[in-house]
Amino acid sequence: MSIKTLGAKAAAALDQELMSTCAFSIDQLMELAGLSVSQAVYRVHPLNGGRRVLVACGPGNNGGDGLVAARHLFSYGYKPTIFYPKRSKNELYQRLAKQLEDLDIPFVDDFKTAVAATDHVVDAIFGFSFSGEVREPFPAVIRALEETKVPVTSVDAPSAWDIENGPPSSGLGSAFMPTALVSLTAPKPLVKHFKGRHFVGGRFVSPSIAKKYDFEVPPYEGIDQVVEVTTTGGKI
Amino acid sequence: MSIKTLGAKAAAALDQELMSTCAFSIDQLMELAGLSVSQAVYRVHPLNGGRRVLVACGPGNNGGDGLVAARHLFSYGYKPTIFYPKRSKNELYQRLAKQLEDLDIPFVDDFKTAVAATDHVVDAIFGFSFSGEVREPFPAVIRALEETKVPVTSVDAPSAWDIENGPPSSGLGSAFMPTALVSLTAPKPLVKHFKGRHFVGGRFVSPSIAKKYDFEVPPYEGIDQVVEVTTTGGKI
Repeated sequence: MSIKTLGAKAAAALDQELMSTCAFSIDQLMELAGLSVSQAVYRVHPLNGGRRVLVACGPGNNGGDGLVAARHLFSYGYKPTIFYPKRSKNELYQRLAKQLEDLDIPFVDDFKTAVAATDHVVDAIFGFSFSGEVREPFPAVIRALEETKVPVTSVDAPSAWDIENGPPSSGLGSAFMPTALVSLTAPKPLVKHFKGRHFVGGRFVSPSIAKKYDFEVPPYEGIDQVVEVTTTGGKI
Repeated sequence: MSIKTLGAKAAAALDQELMSTCAFSIDQLMELAGLSVSQAVYRVHPLNGGRRVLVACGPGNNGGDGLVAARHLFSYGYKPTIFYPKRSKNELYQRLAKQLEDLDIPFVDDFKTAVAATDHVVDAIFGFSFSGEVREPFPAVIRALEETKVPVTSVDAPSAWDIENGPPSSGLGSAFMPTALVSLTAPKPLVKHFKGRHFVGGRFVSPSIAKKYDFEVPPYEGIDQVVEVTTTGGKI
């Protein structure tokens, strides 16, 4: 089977189309995206592997997906901790954070200390709209992700990777290889460089939209919101 | 185990609290409620039992849950048909209907003909805010639900049943006994009168909110969004 990848510009256009002509709200899409991520974590890191999950959230939509995933992980029986240093003033993100606070889920400021006391990390820092520079305070976070032995699940993109070209050839992020990757809606070109367990999530893309963007709805099974796929040479 | 039921007023207050102090949007809640319903249908009526599912949607939130469930059922491989005679002008419901139209899911006007050509019915006509009179065009729909041999899954309440007292003692709705019931957030008092497979869904209630409303979060398993419970004499 061959599923094509979706470049950064096409992914942005697809997102816009889902929220305009396709009539989805961002609340809906983020809920389903975060749910997908939580289901992938449940497979990669079952509860008996240790319940502590550190969810690193960036300032944008990728971080929002992480906030939603953390809530679902809590409901499955995990003990999430949230690192969310650049809180968005956007009302949706504020509500997603409040939903976690109401569950007494701790928010922590020191990523390095937190990563030393967790069983799994969810990297929801940067997604398909990332390009170029890793701004403060995230460089130290990326370094910690490069160094940790704790398994990491990245949301849509390993943070600091270029969406088209994958990991930087040197410097920050060049040594970051997460354990698992959850591509939302469709894999991005960076998957060519990814070595690990690869899932596709975001089971809300219609066959006609997938066709328009020249990919296929992946072969989800049953009621699953994610499907594990095999990445070989950029084709799946 | 004993889970208490939630009366109509308490259910309305809980809904309000989820959307105010708990900071959920109705988009989020409806997405997760509809997802729960779709998962219950998947258990009650697996794909090999026939893919045709007729989803009867009322004008309010119960109908919205049905619209969401239909979309998920489509993604699982079912062939839904929608009966939605009183379309809300509310923007959310219009978007949920558009999402189905984009999947080429048919909307039908004649319930009686549709019920004769389906393998399963989802009754998303009236929910916990129903009281008293069944308005047009729904009396004929309730009669068809009473008469059909096709299995029916009701959302939150068998439509036309009184939320506190169950089925009317005579007349319209008195002979309606769905095959399955999906109670959202918590069972309503009517479950005392329900004989069938009973699920609880809506996995977004925090332990503290459940405590405040004097029920318990039901024992969901794994990543499931519904749990099947046993109803005996009003206690679960």
